[in-house]
Order: sequence, then C-alpha cells, then structure tokens
Amino acid sequence: MSELTPSFSLRVPEGDGAERRVCDHCGFVAYENPKIVVGSVVRDPARRVLLCRRAIEPRRGFWTIPAGYMELGETPEEGAGREALEEAGARIEIRRLLAIYSVPRISQVQLIYRADLPDPAAIEAGPESLEVAWFGWDAIPWEDLAFPSVHWALRHDREAEEGASPVPFTNPEGAAGDRMPDGRPLPVGDF
Amino acid sequence: MSELTPSFSLRVPEGDGAERRVCDHCGFVAYENPKIVVGSVVRDPARRVLLCRRAIEPRRGFWTIPAGYMELGETPEEGAGREALEEAGARIEIRRLLAIYSVPRISQVQLIYRADLPDPAAIEAGPESLEVAWFGWDAIPWEDLAFPSVHWALRHDREAEEGASPVPFTNPEGAAGDRMPDGRPLPVGDF
Repeated sequence: MSELTPSFSLRVPEGDGAERRVCDHCGFVAYENPKIVVGSVVRDPARRVLLCRRAIEPRRGFWTIPAGYMELGETPEEGAGREALEEAGARIEIRRLLAIYSVPRISQVQLIYRADLPDPAAIEAGPESLEVAWFGWDAIPWEDLAFPSVHWALRHDREAEEGASPVPFTNPEGAAGDRMPDGRPLPVGDF
Repeated sequence: MSELTPSFSLRVPEGDGAERRVCDHCGFVAYENPKIVVGSVVRDPARRVLLCRRAIEPRRGFWTIPAGYMELGETPEEGAGREALEEAGARIEIRRLLAIYSVPRISQVQLIYRADLPDPAAIEAGPESLEVAWFGWDAIPWEDLAFPSVHWALRHDREAEEGASPVPFTNPEGAAGDRMPDGRPLPVGDF
C-alpha cells in the first residue's frame, strides 16, 4: 500500500444523474445505497420478549431487539436469525414478517420479523451485548430503548399478538425515525 | 486526479470479521451491502397491469414491472413511485405492500407494492423503456418476462386481487430467483 489516505469529492460520474463520492486519487466511484436492517421480536413460551443491552455505540447501554445489517448472500430471514444468534446466542424460529420501517434520514429500511425461542434459558450475551434478558410487557424498559423502531416493533408485535391483521406494520403515521416516541432526539445511528 | 487507476484486494479490515474490498492505494474499505429493489404492480381501472419493455441490459427487449434500485433518502414507497414515473411516466397511487422477494445470489431484496393508475392514457416510455403498455391477464407475455420475480409478482397480485390474505407474499417455495419459472437460465442481472 502507498502513502495515500482515502480522499473523496462529490462529483457526477459520466453517464450518471446524481452526485456520487469519487476518489480523488483513482476515480473510483463509491456508490452508496440504502441499507437493510434485519431483526426480530423474539418471544419465549411465556410470551416474554427478548431484549439486548447494547455494548456498542451508538446508544451503548440502551436496550434493543436483536437486529443488524443484512449481509451479502443471505435472505432477510437468515439475516434476522444470524443477528439473534450473534447478539443473544438465540437460535430463533422465525414466524412471519411483522413490519417494514424506513428511516430515510439515514437511508435505512428495516425488516422486522416475529420469532419464537422455545427454550428461554438458551440465550447468552454476544460481543455486541452487555446483557440479554426476557421481559414481560409491563417490565419493558421503555425509557431506555435504543431506537424509535424498537418501540414501534414492540408495540406492533403486541398488536399482532392480540390478533391484529397480519398486514405488516409500517412507520407510525408521520414518524420518520428521527426521534424517540417521547420526542427525545437521537444520535445518527446504526443498529 | 493522479495517474492511478482503481485497484482493490480482498482483505479483512482491522476489527472486522469478514473479507472486504480494500483499496491497494489508500486503504479505503469498499463495504458492499445487499441492495433494495422497489417496484409495483400497477393496475388501471379495467384491472389491466402496466408492463415496460426494457431498453437496457440485462434482459433488453423483455417485459418487466416498473422497478429499480431504491435511492438514498427516500422511503420504499417513494422509490416505487419514482421508478414508475421514470420508466413509464406514470404517477401511481400506492396501495399496500404485495411482496418481499429475496435473490441471495445477487444479494437483492425486492419490495413490491400494489398500485393503481386512474388514467390509463397517462403513461409514456421513459429512457430505460422501449415501450409501455397495459395487459389483461390473458395477454401478459409470459414467455417474454424479464425476471422470475416479475412472474411471481404478477401471479401474487392476481391472488391478492382475488382476495388472498394480505400477508405479503415471499419467494415461491424453493425458488431463489436463479431461473425463470419454466427453468430457463438467466444472466446475473439488475433491475
């Protein structure tokens, strides 16, 4: 490797219609696309939900559902299963799509599934989790959830649990994922 | 810009767990993620479907539904509307999610919506389409469809039209999008 460091400028590549990040050294075009987050609301036989306390920024110390970026070469369901295994040691059984959320500000689409884990003891914090635990509805740490979509997913899963139409849910009316549901601001963040 | 040309090697960046494309000149890591295709099955008041004959490779000359890569900063629904406008001049009204398909071989997730266009005359071929036209079910050029997921989407939309459960459809059992439904092979292709 030479002494160069990465350096990009916004330019419109030939034949393209939009500005892209173009390398100042070699002309490589770093196309950026929206990213897909895959995750799940996991329940045990007592219908408690599985949450992971984040060991990484952003939102370290806050609680989230198992979720993360979909990788190349996998289906969304496989990705959601992989994330539950990596973050919570859980080999989940995916049931169906719960919701599609979009957060245009950070160009993110989230595909959230409903899932079960038959053995509630079969969980373990992975490297990105400080701890993992089961929560009944009334014990959910609402004030300490990591992202608005964690709120949305938990509430939507409860509606599904109560027999709501199986259409997948989407962002709550008017919500773009920029703030927590109680209005608190958020860092620009990844899952 | 210097005399360099883009040059990448597969390496595992520090703190990462997988091989990525790393620039030989400056160490820039070109992360690749699955891509999101957004599209729609559009119907006119006579319940005909809108198809576009592709003016670009792959699958030039074959028929497809309006669809393409989701861009940064838009919702999936906005992206599906944009593609219908770009490819068919159609200002569609999106109804609901029809299907989520995945094609792991090319790391693609497709979000396909049901949509209406009240005025069937308000269509026009865009730069990526040779022609655009409305088709009744029996007139659909099944042998000349561009991609397996176009097949799937048209059939799933018909099931939805006939009152099927509004759960979004997914890949047909066992189908990974590698071949047309009649078994014909496909080029690795983009929408």
